[in-house]
Amino acid sequence: MRDGFALPLRQRDSAVLVRPPNVSDRWLGRQLQATLEPVRIRLRLWDASSPWSRGTPVGEILVRDRWALLGLILNPDWSFGEMYMQGRVLVTGDLSQVVESLSRLSHPGPPSIWERLQLALTPPNYLLRARRNIHHHYDLGNDFYKLWLDSELVYTCACYPSADSTLEEAQRAKLDMVCRKLRLQPGEQVVEAGCGWGALALHMAKHYGVTVRAFNISRDQLAYARQRAAEENLSSRVAFIEDDYRNITGRCDAFVSVGMLEHVGRRRFGALAAVMRDSLKPDTGRGLLHFIGRDQPRPLNAWIRRRIFPGGYPPALGEVIADVLQPANLSVLDVENLRLHYARTLTDWRRRFEQAESTVRDRFGDAFFRAWHVYLAGSEAAFTTGWMQLYQIVFAPAAGTTVYHLRPSHPCAPAMY
Amino acid sequence: MRDGFALPLRQRDSAVLVRPPNVSDRWLGRQLQATLEPVRIRLRLWDASSPWSRGTPVGEILVRDRWALLGLILNPDWSFGEMYMQGRVLVTGDLSQVVESLSRLSHPGPPSIWERLQLALTPPNYLLRARRNIHHHYDLGNDFYKLWLDSELVYTCACYPSADSTLEEAQRAKLDMVCRKLRLQPGEQVVEAGCGWGALALHMAKHYGVTVRAFNISRDQLAYARQRAAEENLSSRVAFIEDDYRNITGRCDAFVSVGMLEHVGRRRFGALAAVMRDSLKPDTGRGLLHFIGRDQPRPLNAWIRRRIFPGGYPPALGEVIADVLQPANLSVLDVENLRLHYARTLTDWRRRFEQAESTVRDRFGDAFFRAWHVYLAGSEAAFTTGWMQLYQIVFAPAAGTTVYHLRPSHPCAPAMY
Repeated sequence: MRDGFALPLRQRDSAVLVRPPNVSDRWLGRQLQATLEPVRIRLRLWDASSPWSRGTPVGEILVRDRWALLGLILNPDWSFGEMYMQGRVLVTGDLSQVVESLSRLSHPGPPSIWERLQLALTPPNYLLRARRNIHHHYDLGNDFYKLWLDSELVYTCACYPSADSTLEEAQRAKLDMVCRKLRLQPGEQVVEAGCGWGALALHMAKHYGVTVRAFNISRDQLAYARQRAAEENLSSRVAFIEDDYRNITGRCDAFVSVGMLEHVGRRRFGALAAVMRDSLKPDTGRGLLHFIGRDQPRPLNAWIRRRIFPGGYPPALGEVIADVLQPANLSVLDVENLRLHYARTLTDWRRRFEQAESTVRDRFGDAFFRAWHVYLAGSEAAFTTGWMQLYQIVFAPAAGTTVYHLRPSHPCAPAMY
Repeated sequence: MRDGFALPLRQRDSAVLVRPPNVSDRWLGRQLQATLEPVRIRLRLWDASSPWSRGTPVGEILVRDRWALLGLILNPDWSFGEMYMQGRVLVTGDLSQVVESLSRLSHPGPPSIWERLQLALTPPNYLLRARRNIHHHYDLGNDFYKLWLDSELVYTCACYPSADSTLEEAQRAKLDMVCRKLRLQPGEQVVEAGCGWGALALHMAKHYGVTVRAFNISRDQLAYARQRAAEENLSSRVAFIEDDYRNITGRCDAFVSVGMLEHVGRRRFGALAAVMRDSLKPDTGRGLLHFIGRDQPRPLNAWIRRRIFPGGYPPALGEVIADVLQPANLSVLDVENLRLHYARTLTDWRRRFEQAESTVRDRFGDAFFRAWHVYLAGSEAAFTTGWMQLYQIVFAPAAGTTVYHLRPSHPCAPAMY
């Protein structure tokens, strides 16, 4: 069983130990039910009783003890994930639909004072902390990710050419889109910061004739990527380097980072800006940042930050422009928000994950399965309901000479959404 | 002759009055020539002498008196425009090429302390000041703008479908692009803030079947727009309203503003944000901002602010996102940078303006012609060299349900640039 996913002792057989709800439990249950009613979720307490009386609900939340009930009322953002992981909150019906309904309980708005305070108090991701954080998430074993990612292990938002595209097609379309937005030319030098299992680096080298230096601090991912490079005879053109983005040196024609910015943390945007400024050729360079973002600066959900993505921070678009691109003196050429494509990607991942349920439970334990299940469903809901955004920014040095427009002048051809 | 374009008395026949350059004038001339050499511009002093000795220059700058020479050295951003307008600096060769070369003397970078100070000290555009500012620029008489704009008087960046498109075609393509980015549906209500001579409002009503309330505080423009609406039988569907954007009320399906944000001023972004938030339908609304912007916050050139665009401030993209869209709780769907299209638009405008030279000189005087000539050439250079950007942002309320992706998943079809 993975560290951090062991259940507290008293919980293991809580159903036997806890007493039936008393008068105050029932009163609290009614208050919580009143909150959940607008999104049609039925609450049940641990004796299976429910104050619901309004037709068919979207799904049911079963609360299995008093402390779980209190947690859902006092600190729902933390408690729902934690109690679900611990098996003290169960969901009947489609988990993703229930979580989406919960996401609609409030609309994303400006950050609260509490959220601002959390942002101010978040420590920076120092080098050592960064390694530990990345190890926590990405070194769960490549076999784990093979269970539910696409065949090339691309762990970022795909781009669906049409509504019935497969995940594999959509990931390949995304890789191509990134290459074409960067206008890669054969023989050019590319730096990739945070290369995952290497799919993009290998794709660029194979189909666009460039040479790539790809950086990552996850050993499991690098081992896999190097093996693929060797198998596909690309080792001479793709160097997979185990190092932090802060240690990138040398010049390149294109700088690309897909899904790393979320791990940098807002207190280290200056370091990333310096790397981008120093590595791009000042005249002909251009770059692309692909990242999970927000409309407003706000901290990542506390439970996800604790259990899934330590150190994670999806930045607001305005922060990336003001705190990464402006200090690096880069000019924004294009921004695309692909959040509905990410919702769809997460649907595909979650379904595959659900199909692999027994394997995951056997290998990692029930709590781990539930944690990742609710994390995937929650992310899907966040992109569907607008709590999260997915941005691709194309940029070039402000003094560069290779400015281009990405789109023909009538860009609004019928699209998927 | 227009106010503000009268020449100082001693200048009118300066060629007769001034003495030949002395030793220190020649020394200063050599220093200035050394600065201009990298961009291949030859300097001549008022006795036609020149320290240049390096082959064919791009063009020549003739300085006609000592104070003009000092001005170019001590405060070139102000003095070049002012002295050119006053006829105390002349340009031999292609004005636009010379101005472009001057723009390349330095690269756009982070704002200096002096620029930051100017930003901090700029007063807000109060209602009355806003009216005066707009009157200064837009109420020069519709006949003036008819001399060099397209047939529909669209005074914003066009979008060229191909390299040989005419200005008229490119402006129509731009109007269509705006409508399609907004996904206008027949019967919908549109608010336009800052409608110019009404081309977009009329285009939307005529070709997309919407009803429009279009706001403007320029009387000359409104008179023209209303007449066009009457002639084209669109008065029932397009209301041209003489009022400030701050007084917009009521809800709409789409909010659009093309070329107004530059006149709002950074100290009034909050007011615009409030209007946008309050006027868009929270579920199905969406909007578009089209504006001249910057990579970095910096004040508009002092001479242009004084002579051409009082109160003008092209904002940094990051400012618009952080200070307009975030406070209004709007989600960015798409950003397109069209700066090379604006450079091309300005080339077309400048050429038509040059063809109308004698008419403009007769009607407004020589200084006015020179001021506008160097303003158009300077703007063209600024978009060509990256000192200015042209952004279109598409957005929707963060809690909206009509989020869409503008582009098919392979957006990188061959484009003009």
